[in-house]
Order: sequence, then structure tokens, then C-alpha cells
Amino acid sequence: MSQRPTLQDVIEARRRISPYITRTPLHHYRGLDKLIGAEVWVKHENHQPLGAFKMRGALNTLSQLTPEQKKHGVVCASTGNFGQGIAYAASVFGMKANIVVPMNANADKVESMRRLGGNIIFHGKDFDECRDKADTMSKEEGCFYVHSANEPRLVPGVATYSLEIFEDLPDVDVIIVPIGGGSGACGACIVKEGINPKVQVIGVGAESAPGAYQSWKQRRVVESTTSTVAEGLATRVGFEYTQEILWDLLDDFVLISEDEIMNGVRLALEHTHNLAEHAGSSGIAAAVKIKDRLKGKKVAIVMSGGNISMPQLKKVMDGVR
Amino acid sequence: MSQRPTLQDVIEARRRISPYITRTPLHHYRGLDKLIGAEVWVKHENHQPLGAFKMRGALNTLSQLTPEQKKHGVVCASTGNFGQGIAYAASVFGMKANIVVPMNANADKVESMRRLGGNIIFHGKDFDECRDKADTMSKEEGCFYVHSANEPRLVPGVATYSLEIFEDLPDVDVIIVPIGGGSGACGACIVKEGINPKVQVIGVGAESAPGAYQSWKQRRVVESTTSTVAEGLATRVGFEYTQEILWDLLDDFVLISEDEIMNGVRLALEHTHNLAEHAGSSGIAAAVKIKDRLKGKKVAIVMSGGNISMPQLKKVMDGVR
Repeated sequence: MSQRPTLQDVIEARRRISPYITRTPLHHYRGLDKLIGAEVWVKHENHQPLGAFKMRGALNTLSQLTPEQKKHGVVCASTGNFGQGIAYAASVFGMKANIVVPMNANADKVESMRRLGGNIIFHGKDFDECRDKADTMSKEEGCFYVHSANEPRLVPGVATYSLEIFEDLPDVDVIIVPIGGGSGACGACIVKEGINPKVQVIGVGAESAPGAYQSWKQRRVVESTTSTVAEGLATRVGFEYTQEILWDLLDDFVLISEDEIMNGVRLALEHTHNLAEHAGSSGIAAAVKIKDRLKGKKVAIVMSGGNISMPQLKKVMDGVR
Repeated sequence: MSQRPTLQDVIEARRRISPYITRTPLHHYRGLDKLIGAEVWVKHENHQPLGAFKMRGALNTLSQLTPEQKKHGVVCASTGNFGQGIAYAASVFGMKANIVVPMNANADKVESMRRLGGNIIFHGKDFDECRDKADTMSKEEGCFYVHSANEPRLVPGVATYSLEIFEDLPDVDVIIVPIGGGSGACGACIVKEGINPKVQVIGVGAESAPGAYQSWKQRRVVESTTSTVAEGLATRVGFEYTQEILWDLLDDFVLISEDEIMNGVRLALEHTHNLAEHAGSSGIAAAVKIKDRLKGKKVAIVMSGGNISMPQLKKVMDGVR
């Protein structure tokens, strides 16, 4: 695969995007140490301006479009965070952004995209139906389709957070990353291959959205179903571009239940005092699940986003005894 | 007053403490713009490693103790965040930290201090009783008493966050700061005096803990009562050292009700997706209250901390319709 990004691509991406992002902290939480039996660090991508890591990839991609492409604007499909990243990057570079979201999309995220100047198109029942619509719009209207995973400039942008992890914790043993489209996990894999191939990268998915997991396990793109509450993990089908990287480099892929996902949000609130969205705290939930394998290790968990709505948070808190 | 800090002291403090703190982001929230009718930025001191700004002052103070003082360790009184800052700074510089907390102290914060190696002494019903105990311990055991406000090295340390606000938003018009002991507001005043005296600094307190407000209003140290849920604002009596600075330089002091405090936590969750403690989001609550005066201005609100417990959060969320 000639287009697989290298550490050099990640370093170049950082130069490109760093004026527009926050270099997020990696914090050590002693409460999580105790719970998991490891030295647990959290990479706070929820501290980005839009509350999620996605803008790193969006900025790296849109900054490299040609003047002709910039003139026609972009289109993308999103359940929320990716669309916010694209809307933000488009506003930075003076482009129009069309964002196709499912009919039942998280209202907070949609409102945020709109405030950033995004043109919102509600369509279909899930992310994959939105993808078809975005593809059609791109062909009909001539705007550049930014695919949320099969776009080779996304991964080096997203990978910059993994570069920061290695800078702050050079002797990290394990990196745990939620997998939706897979760009975050690919980024971690690319960076660790370049810096220290002995580091393990473990992906996290939802049992009730196993498409990406099955695609990884079977080493072929598989379609499945999704019914998870975690928007960021709700992918029905694996993406070829990211899957091919994960087939080679991802060490393991852990699935967690809906109960474990809800509990992850609570654990994040209690032990890190951070509001994470369901996917955002899924790394903590997964670390608790596989704690026997993490014993005594230095573990960096990516908190990928914090964009949970108040009704969603209320449901989470109703489970607090 | 010869000991009043200058901008130069703040710059020196930053050199001293920067290896141990996070340079926190100042984020713009369009949802808050709409709500308040101003351009609203939030300074995320809740993103510090211990979830609050206090460590800035603690690090600046403890780093300057003599070798003899370091040998005997320190003692302080705290409702939570200051004690965590002292415990953290003591661990950085290899000292023993004794922390006197009220009998009903926030369990999360106490546990955090303990994990940082702090020696916890439960005493009395509120912060002011803890102060007496800490004073006695200092005299009896020879450890250095770090006063949470009347310590001249705290303010320059704490003021470093205001320096960062000016770096990120040089044309800020108004800075809104919660006032407990007053070190944060003093820091903002010192920095704005040095950089742009036209900037307004507005303090926030609780109607049900009006001691600091009354002390400021009457230009003399006044004792009152406290019954607020906001630990960080629960000061019964104004402190001379910080009050003298505030008498000269603070532009206004706004009191908010317990309902407004609870609503502030909800507004922070909804519009910033950050978990703030009651004092931490009191600046947002105050900005909503005085929005007519903020119209069209660039406002920086200090989110001073995020250390709210799960039972406290549950109470906040029970108020969500």
C-alpha cells in the first residue's frame, strides 16, 4: 500500500494543524490506577475546542485541497464529531461545508456544526445511509467528498495526538483507542511503528456495533448492524483504508457491552472529573474489562470526545446508586 | 503595601511552575455567546492535573521555601482543592504535607489528597475552624503554615492563568473570576493592571457565603456565615492580604443564589461539555445574571475547578427537566 502514512507524514501534519488545535494534556489518574491495577494515563482529546479529536484529521485534509477544490467546498457524512471537525476546518480555510447527518443525530452536535457555519442535511437512519447521500451530493454538486475513514490525509492528522502521547509518556506500554471509522487507532499504530513497535495498540468497539471488529477479525470488510448508544462507535461496516492498516498493525480489538459503555461514562466522571461521551470513555471501560492483561503496565487511554447531550447524561446518572 | 505582587513576579512564577502545570486552553463557546449576548471564552483551569487552579499557587510557594523549611514540611487548611495543590507541590519537592480538612469534606478531594501522599487531619465543621487547627499545628510541630490567601507567594503563582488569558485573547474586555480566598481574582487584577488597566475584573461569590463580598464592600475584614453548596466559595471571613488588593483593583463583585449556582453547573455541562464544580461554573452563572452589562464584550470566564463528587452531580442532574 503506497498510501500508508509514515511517522514523517504525522510530523508534517502537526506543522500544518498545530496553529488551530489544542495540544491536549495526558493526565495520570491514581483512582484509575487502583481500579485497573496499572499506571493509567488519559489523553484528553475531549479538551479540543470542539470537544473531540476529529478536527485534527479534518484540518490536515482540508488544508491540502487545491484552490479549485476549495472553491467548490466539501461534503461529508457524520454522526456528529467528524462533521464538527469538517465544519471547523472549512471555516478556518474559508470553504463551504455540507454535512449529512442521520435524522436522529445528537442535537447538540448538529447545533454546533450549524454555529460553525456548516450546511446541515438530515438524511436516513444511520451513518452509512448518510455516506451514500454524501457520495451522491459530491457527484451532483462537484464538492469534494471527505470520507471519514477512506481519506489518506485524515490518519496523519489524527495521529498527531498519538505523537503527543509518546512525547509525554515515552515509556508507554499500551495505548487503548476507541474505534469508529478507525482513524484514531490507525494513527496510534503508525506512530508506535515509527517510535517503538513493542508498544501495544488495543482498539475498543461496541458489542452491539461489531462491523469494524468483524472486519478486523476476518481480514475482509464485513457489514453488520448497529444498535449501540455510543454514536462514535456506531459503524455498521468496516472501512477498507483503515482496516488494511489495522489488519497489519493493531494488536487487539476488545468489544464492550452497552452496560459497560454506560459505566465507562460514570467512571470517567468519577475518577477523572471529565464529561466524556459514550465512545470517549469506552477506553476506560475496556481497560477495566481487560485489567488482568494490563497489570503493572503504563497505559494511555484515549478519551476521544466529550460531546454527550444532557438527556444522554441524565440516563447515565440515573444509573448511579 | 510593599508585598503586593507585580506582573514581573507573575512572569517569574511562571518560569518556576511551568514544568509542573498544564497550560490550559481558553475556549470560545458559541452556545454561551447566544445565551449571554457577548463573545464568551472559558479558561479551563479544570483541565489542570488535579482539576483545579490551586496548584499554581502551591507550586510557586513551596518551590521558594528554605531547605530548613522543606525539611519540616508544611501544613494547610483546605476544603479540598487547595489541599490537593499543596499535597501535589509537596510531592514534587519532596516534602511532607499535613492538610486539615472539615469533618464533612468532599470525599473525592480528600481521597485525592491522600493518594498524593498528604497527611489528612479531619477537624471542625468548616474551613475557618480548620485554619485555627492548622495554625496550632504549625506552632506545635514546627511545620510551615501555608495560608490559603495571606501568603504572598500564592497570588503570583495563581496569576499565571490570567497571564495566559491575555496571551490567548489580548483584547479581552472583562475577566470573571470566582472568589473563595481571593487569590484568583487578585491574580487577574495584578495581571490586568500590568497589561491593560482598562480590562474589568469581576468577582463572583455566593449569596449564602457573603463574607468576602461584605469585606470588599465595606473595605474592612468582615466575618459572616456560610451555607453554600459551593465549597470553593464557602469562606466565612475575608482575608486581609487578598482583600487589600481587591479593595484597590477589583471592579465589581457579584453574588449569586444557590439556584443560580446549581444552574451554572448545568450550563457548563450543556454548553461547554465540561464537568465543573459549583464554584468552577459560578462565573458562567454570574455572566448570565449580569448579561446586560456584558453585551457585545469579549468576556473570559475562569472555570476554576472540576472536582465535583458523584452525589453532588446527581443532585445537579435531578434538576434537569
